[in-house]
Amino acid sequence: MIVSTPLGAVLVSSLPRKVGLLGAGRIGAVHARAITAHRGSDLVAVSDVVTDNAAQLAQAYGTVARSSDDIIADPSIDAVLIATSTDTHCDFIEAATAAGTADLCEKPVDLDLARARACQEKVAATGQPVMIGFNRRFDPSFNTLKSALTAGEIGKPELLSITSFDPAPPPVSYIKVSGGLFRDMMIHDCDMANFIMGAAPAAVMAVGSGAAFCYDQRIELLASDGLLQAQNMLENLVVKSTSAGVTGAKPQHFFLERYMPAYEAEWAAFVDAVENGTPMPVTLADGVQALTMAEAATMSVKDKKPVKLVEVT
Amino acid sequence: MIVSTPLGAVLVSSLPRKVGLLGAGRIGAVHARAITAHRGSDLVAVSDVVTDNAAQLAQAYGTVARSSDDIIADPSIDAVLIATSTDTHCDFIEAATAAGTADLCEKPVDLDLARARACQEKVAATGQPVMIGFNRRFDPSFNTLKSALTAGEIGKPELLSITSFDPAPPPVSYIKVSGGLFRDMMIHDCDMANFIMGAAPAAVMAVGSGAAFCYDQRIELLASDGLLQAQNMLENLVVKSTSAGVTGAKPQHFFLERYMPAYEAEWAAFVDAVENGTPMPVTLADGVQALTMAEAATMSVKDKKPVKLVEVT
Amino acid sequence: MIVSTPLGAVLVSSLPRKVGLLGAGRIGAVHARAITAHRGSDLVAVSDVVTDNAAQLAQAYGTVARSSDDIIADPSIDAVLIATSTDTHCDFIEAATAAGTADLCEKPVDLDLARARACQEKVAATGQPVMIGFNRRFDPSFNTLKSALTAGEIGKPELLSITSFDPAPPPVSYIKVSGGLFRDMMIHDCDMANFIMGAAPAAVMAVGSGAAFCYDQRIELLASDGLLQAQNMLENLVVKSTSAGVTGAKPQHFFLERYMPAYEAEWAAFVDAVENGTPMPVTLADGVQALTMAEAATMSVKDKKPVKLVEVT
Amino acid sequence: MIVSTPLGAVLVSSLPRKVGLLGAGRIGAVHARAITAHRGSDLVAVSDVVTDNAAQLAQAYGTVARSSDDIIADPSIDAVLIATSTDTHCDFIEAATAAGTADLCEKPVDLDLARARACQEKVAATGQPVMIGFNRRFDPSFNTLKSALTAGEIGKPELLSITSFDPAPPPVSYIKVSGGLFRDMMIHDCDMANFIMGAAPAAVMAVGSGAAFCYDQRIELLASDGLLQAQNMLENLVVKSTSAGVTGAKPQHFFLERYMPAYEAEWAAFVDAVENGTPMPVTLADGVQALTMAEAATMSVKDKKPVKLVEVT
Repeated sequence: MIVSTPLGAVLVSSLPRKVGLLGAGRIGAVHARAITAHRGSDLVAVSDVVTDNAAQLAQAYGTVARSSDDIIADPSIDAVLIATSTDTHCDFIEAATAAGTADLCEKPVDLDLARARACQEKVAATGQPVMIGFNRRFDPSFNTLKSALTAGEIGKPELLSITSFDPAPPPVSYIKVSGGLFRDMMIHDCDMANFIMGAAPAAVMAVGSGAAFCYDQRIELLASDGLLQAQNMLENLVVKSTSAGVTGAKPQHFFLERYMPAYEAEWAAFVDAVENGTPMPVTLADGVQALTMAEAATMSVKDKKPVKLVEVT
Repeated sequence: MIVSTPLGAVLVSSLPRKVGLLGAGRIGAVHARAITAHRGSDLVAVSDVVTDNAAQLAQAYGTVARSSDDIIADPSIDAVLIATSTDTHCDFIEAATAAGTADLCEKPVDLDLARARACQEKVAATGQPVMIGFNRRFDPSFNTLKSALTAGEIGKPELLSITSFDPAPPPVSYIKVSGGLFRDMMIHDCDMANFIMGAAPAAVMAVGSGAAFCYDQRIELLASDGLLQAQNMLENLVVKSTSAGVTGAKPQHFFLERYMPAYEAEWAAFVDAVENGTPMPVTLADGVQALTMAEAATMSVKDKKPVKLVEVT
Repeated sequence: MIVSTPLGAVLVSSLPRKVGLLGAGRIGAVHARAITAHRGSDLVAVSDVVTDNAAQLAQAYGTVARSSDDIIADPSIDAVLIATSTDTHCDFIEAATAAGTADLCEKPVDLDLARARACQEKVAATGQPVMIGFNRRFDPSFNTLKSALTAGEIGKPELLSITSFDPAPPPVSYIKVSGGLFRDMMIHDCDMANFIMGAAPAAVMAVGSGAAFCYDQRIELLASDGLLQAQNMLENLVVKSTSAGVTGAKPQHFFLERYMPAYEAEWAAFVDAVENGTPMPVTLADGVQALTMAEAATMSVKDKKPVKLVEVT
Repeated sequence: MIVSTPLGAVLVSSLPRKVGLLGAGRIGAVHARAITAHRGSDLVAVSDVVTDNAAQLAQAYGTVARSSDDIIADPSIDAVLIATSTDTHCDFIEAATAAGTADLCEKPVDLDLARARACQEKVAATGQPVMIGFNRRFDPSFNTLKSALTAGEIGKPELLSITSFDPAPPPVSYIKVSGGLFRDMMIHDCDMANFIMGAAPAAVMAVGSGAAFCYDQRIELLASDGLLQAQNMLENLVVKSTSAGVTGAKPQHFFLERYMPAYEAEWAAFVDAVENGTPMPVTLADGVQALTMAEAATMSVKDKKPVKLVEVT
């Protein structure tokens, strides 16, 4: 059993859990850092289709580069974190669960809903725990907002607004392979809505427009007895007052900075669930549900009308 | 050369630097985490007078426990972080610099000013780099405040107010060995004043009173053309509005939570200075200067009058 | 010419303008205060269908109670403020403009769109200036938001959100005569949208739900280069930090407190327009436009689909 | 009996109280506005040594200009507000109380402590109520802060910081007649300290330095169980977020804007005390006490040491 907060308050009583990381790109580096900072986890191997990437990341954190197949097949590795390209998620999830590891896979499960559902069924048959990386559920502020709602502090929810803008339009290379903003990025917001409201919506109505000036990440929940607002996290806490006005820092630049604590807490929650044999805090079913909503939103923008989730097949 | 921010943006081009940690108590655990999370550092050994502490911390971060003497004597260890009890700081600084390592030592240098000055002279003779752990200089907000002043954004400084309260009175065991709040805790504020103003004060006037309700850590600098305020870091960013009022989270509980990013940035700055052969960002002289101010404050409270720094011997 | 800001900086060079007030109820009392506080206006008469109300208000501000007809017919009265019940607005507007006065009439123009349009035509024929009391246009914050948009500070507008909740459900007596929340209260938000965006929308889609916990009055405008937020005005500026959290005051209770400065600025703007012969800052056409939107919203809730403004007849 | 808040909620049941205003300068115009806006007060005459000033202010608020002696001698005038130059305060207070009026006099009582004390004795003999215009006691935020302390919400007070900077250095003409910043401006802060702490300090230590960038008006009170902060009132509530940062309005320009509600509440409190025969909320003794502190501060700056109030004669 590992208690990781407050820092150092309780020491571990078991050996560090051995972890393999598939994918050494931008998001893989984020997870390498989160795994390494965790007191009860030992990052023992990193893989990537670009072997140089794997080698560099392995060196940076004092571990070794291996192939993904090797990592999955290694019986000494307890847990696998899948941070590869989206089109390989389902294959790796199926292989890693078949090999008996506990797995945390980045979102989205897949761009194709049918493929994601097939993966879900296959994994269910193995009984192995799989968590999907909706890291924002572990953000301390969003988590506090959800807890305050659940505790009845603001009554019955009436209107949920999730603001989620990137600081700049994505590069063309991203647009080509991402499957669209809805399936790759807004899927975070779909899951957040389900997480906060405790249920998926009946229907989705979507319109599209573009505006980008900073990494604007806020949530506002109006309820019968009050309002909860999760505000932007600023780059620092300095406020400057001059004759020109009162100025504070802008929101943290992008998801690496804004959500690093959430990635660390996500990993800790995954380890805790594995250690304690409790259900994964975010399941494959959650990943499929969010993907269904993204699919409905994609249809809605095209057809300019609301789309019921039951219509998405 | 290592660039650690933004996360993963630039990969390391050298082997990780091997680090030994002396002291596995509360603050040692903080440093273990900071060293481990750093892409270019490898925590290779931990020591503690309580060998169980060293063993547990070593296990948590996948390293080994050894004696302090062994660590200092090991030629493969490049850097030593001294996080032992204050009365051993000078001895370890002297031994580790004599052994040719680069060292980062926790504050204060010593409780006795004469001993600290003797250590300073001895180390100067070796030419080895020593950094003193005034981690708050690396807090993103305090750092931004200092930069804004240096950049001339608010003109000539007139009045600096540093608020620094612990969330509760210290335990009796601390009071017995700490050398007093001024030498052990307010010494952070002494150094912060020197850091921001760029010079030590001519005299110190101190009075004492007790109040503790949260970890209140703020800085306010009034200058000829404006005001800079570094505000408290809150536990989360949620604001709740009900008919009873508008409520936000309280400031983060204590220094482990509040200053963890500063400890990480402190370590990165130490590594950068060692890598690049640049001067340490906080020197032994800075540590002695702050101790002199704490000594002056101690005298001032007793004598109820201002004490000039030149009077402190 | 009268300059009313900063207070007392420029003294008036003409006699105070003589003003008659029709309606001595809650909103009439607000206007009595605004007129009286204005350096260039002299409240010379008050009327009300409940003569006691008129007498009491007249006494409170050192003026006299008369009948509405008397006030309108008095050639020494330059301006009339109409704050009577909504069903009498058009009749009084028509009578007062016919009598040659300049008039400021409370919103809405009427509950019946056809009646409002007829009044608009009749007044146009007289050429007399009529202003409709959308006081929120004169709120310093909403005004600043509009100016920042117009000045190009945040680029091209993409998404406007107006939050406008009363602190409690209205009394049954109000529900019976108000013509519905859309025509009587949300009409403020319709006008605010037109004011900020500089044009009416093509269509309106409305849904209804109830939540009331405080007088929540905010505006948020997302644009291509930035975000503008007009925040709630709190009852006071005190923030209390204890071990339980950080608490500020709740938003000001209701429109009397929140918008009193806007009512004063509205009156000053009306007087300035009359003095300078410039167009009224809010016209009868604006009032009819907002009423058309409220009508469309009412239809939309019933039909559960978007309603184009051109469909409203 | 008059209840002036909420606006219009309770109508007056007595005739408006007839008020004469001595002094038609900048601060006189502020009071003219506050008196006129009050439902139970009727401004019936204005005087000034510069008769044009009196005539203009009288015209602006629909009243008449008379001489100060006439106003004081008029038996129909119930209350006199003294807003003349400081050197005439005591003479007018003595004359107006002798004439049987209730009086509100601007601060400071006098620049000469002996003269102020003599006035205090003379007035005490008449038994007439005199209030000194420390309007900041009636600021909603400072008032709330005081109430929270009194209610025991933050425990025992330990450290009170009052920040009070003007937006620019005063003109030379002011410096010549003001009696110094301590006696004319900081006297507000002396009274505020006495008001909040409920007692005058034992001694005053003062140093001087200059910095002016905005009208910075804040109070911070640290106590055993918490912290109360009264923040600056901003010009508006708009926050602009762009890629350059998050910017809000600057504090309201100067005392006319910042403290207008306090002047209105001050007048209402004066009227209430007169109506109800209750003690004045700020007494001549309070004015003398604050002047004593200003005197001590003036001595302290000169002598560079603390000055006990009992030393001031």
